[in-house]
Amino acid sequence: MNLSKRIESMQFSPIRKLNQYADEARSKGLKVIGLNIGQPDIETPSVFFESIKNFDSKVLAYTDSKGIPSLLDSFIKYYNNLGFNLNKDEILITNGGSEALLFAMLTICDPGEEIIIPEPFYTNYNSFSDIASVNVVPFKTFAEDGFRLPSKSEIESKISPKTRGILISNPGNPTGVVYTREEIKMLVEIAMENDLYLISDEVYREFVYDDLTAVSALEFTEAEDRIIIIDSISKRYSACGARIGAMISKNKTLMHTALKLSQSRLCSPTIEQVAAAGLINTPKDYFYEVNREYANRRDILFDCLKTLPDIICQKPTGAFYLIAKLPIKDSDHFATWLLREFSIDNKTVMIAPASGFYATEGLGEDEVRLSYCVNQQDLKDAANILIKGLLEYKKIYV
Amino acid sequence: MNLSKRIESMQFSPIRKLNQYADEARSKGLKVIGLNIGQPDIETPSVFFESIKNFDSKVLAYTDSKGIPSLLDSFIKYYNNLGFNLNKDEILITNGGSEALLFAMLTICDPGEEIIIPEPFYTNYNSFSDIASVNVVPFKTFAEDGFRLPSKSEIESKISPKTRGILISNPGNPTGVVYTREEIKMLVEIAMENDLYLISDEVYREFVYDDLTAVSALEFTEAEDRIIIIDSISKRYSACGARIGAMISKNKTLMHTALKLSQSRLCSPTIEQVAAAGLINTPKDYFYEVNREYANRRDILFDCLKTLPDIICQKPTGAFYLIAKLPIKDSDHFATWLLREFSIDNKTVMIAPASGFYATEGLGEDEVRLSYCVNQQDLKDAANILIKGLLEYKKIYV
Repeated sequence: MNLSKRIESMQFSPIRKLNQYADEARSKGLKVIGLNIGQPDIETPSVFFESIKNFDSKVLAYTDSKGIPSLLDSFIKYYNNLGFNLNKDEILITNGGSEALLFAMLTICDPGEEIIIPEPFYTNYNSFSDIASVNVVPFKTFAEDGFRLPSKSEIESKISPKTRGILISNPGNPTGVVYTREEIKMLVEIAMENDLYLISDEVYREFVYDDLTAVSALEFTEAEDRIIIIDSISKRYSACGARIGAMISKNKTLMHTALKLSQSRLCSPTIEQVAAAGLINTPKDYFYEVNREYANRRDILFDCLKTLPDIICQKPTGAFYLIAKLPIKDSDHFATWLLREFSIDNKTVMIAPASGFYATEGLGEDEVRLSYCVNQQDLKDAANILIKGLLEYKKIYV
Repeated sequence: MNLSKRIESMQFSPIRKLNQYADEARSKGLKVIGLNIGQPDIETPSVFFESIKNFDSKVLAYTDSKGIPSLLDSFIKYYNNLGFNLNKDEILITNGGSEALLFAMLTICDPGEEIIIPEPFYTNYNSFSDIASVNVVPFKTFAEDGFRLPSKSEIESKISPKTRGILISNPGNPTGVVYTREEIKMLVEIAMENDLYLISDEVYREFVYDDLTAVSALEFTEAEDRIIIIDSISKRYSACGARIGAMISKNKTLMHTALKLSQSRLCSPTIEQVAAAGLINTPKDYFYEVNREYANRRDILFDCLKTLPDIICQKPTGAFYLIAKLPIKDSDHFATWLLREFSIDNKTVMIAPASGFYATEGLGEDEVRLSYCVNQQDLKDAANILIKGLLEYKKIYV
């Protein structure tokens, strides 16, 4: 029985693919510190769980496909606090940012059409484009300059008659880059001059450090018909398991038409929608504390990496990831070796080989993505294991 | 700004498209009884809500993409009670049966390939095939004989080199048909002889009346590599809003490969998974009571329809829908007229025009789908309004 070519050509998650070796390590009694996955250890605000305990309907019914009114209102209030006015017909509640990304691609691209994405990029951009039969056309960004955008002409050289949009993650997963206003403005101009959409994945908006601010593509009202925002409560409120996200656009025709996609899968989960609506009441202190904690973790990890001069990595300023270029040839092999062969004080570390974050064959093979979603002590231990492991590995294999 | 052709050619839900007229009717003070949607009014078992109240994790984390172990175990136990042995790697938890259907299509079909479906069929089969760029090739079934399957040769005449599978709903939405063992066996033989998959959507398995039993495609172990079961807790436990379903197959290669799709959207909602796992402990009485209630409702609705000899409808034996062929030309117009122009005792009724359940242009325009998910008194009122409305409408328009 043959399977579809598209499913065969899709990749397994590069973030999760070493799970079996992690399990093996654990079965040998080792503690495996996971720097591979963006699962925050931060507590979800208690208002979320209170809403759930207070849920008192006798029938767990479908909701409106667009999302429940209280959750839409909650998003409207949240955006209002950021200085943006949204109406209910400019928001669709989705099953996480994941579904918003898939909906955006399906809405603007027919099969065989193209989306331009700076690489490295969030690995599931590949998955959603595979599902939608859309071709990802990458343009390169580099560890050496902290993954800044290249020149306008460099990006425009990737545009073909089949190009329908540009997709970015800002702040960036997996790079930790935070684009400047000028960088976003350049993308908006490219979109306007070449009749493209700009899909801006801003789910890490709150996670910016060093007194920077993430610039939302929504600021560029001159191009509002072209801009689609991907949002999610997963990282903002450490509520990944809720699977509540949103697709947002001021292009009402686009949003009305995308409702067909929402209707096809009926609705997002009811109880999680109800609970998510209450998150707007999270005290401001929560974000302050969380932000300070991540900034400290970023410093711990980055300072440790900088002790080895042959690791190439600029200090990231957003999200909770970084990409480090290592003095090795095959980060897949190195990551596996760490789990199977190396430990300090009965602890080892799990990292994500970066090749899965690139569309261009051969790129990222000497790079790893590290997330800093674990507590500071674990992070110190993990960084130490990584550095010592790298020195040991180089002796054997490089 | 152009949208994709695929999104433009997709249809809005024919079940929900009259919502605006229903809202208008309500704003005039009318009670609108909804026979348009398959939203059961039956209470969700209390174990579900108890699990939610007991949820006590501090961080709402992602789960394993396949689903949480306790929910997989719960499905295994449920299938064991039906006489089928499943392993954990033969089940993927999905966001409702909806996502399971999309995953099944994506896994077996490349863009432009075909799936054969008896029509009328669940309208979102069209939506998922649009998303997956798969062509639906319908074969006709008829109100006159209760939507039984046609002959083997008739079905086989729809097979082309591009055909990858057959998709059925059994018990059937929207027809209420319950296929016999011989009918399923015929489909299995067609699948085996023509190298096709058989996707069997069995989410209404418990809803069969008149002492019939729904035959699962899983019984046909000789073809187990070809069979994909779509399952969901939505109807079984009146838990539509949980968005918990499953894709099931004994074809381990297929299931392992489909895991890529699960990984791409990270996981199904965590709390709803936890709560759904407990539903296996629902007392048997629950199903007995629910089943008796639906059988009674079916009788109320069907008996009322039979008072008009020019309504064509065989007594349905499963699910909670029926398709009735009416002595009119345009059921869209009739359904709208009912909401806008007709009421009895300040009540009116909302029904689903059936053309949206057909792939063949022009079919179903004299048919409506009626669900019997409302209480018996409302159902009596609704059926009475429908019959009286039809008589009135015929005087004006036929």
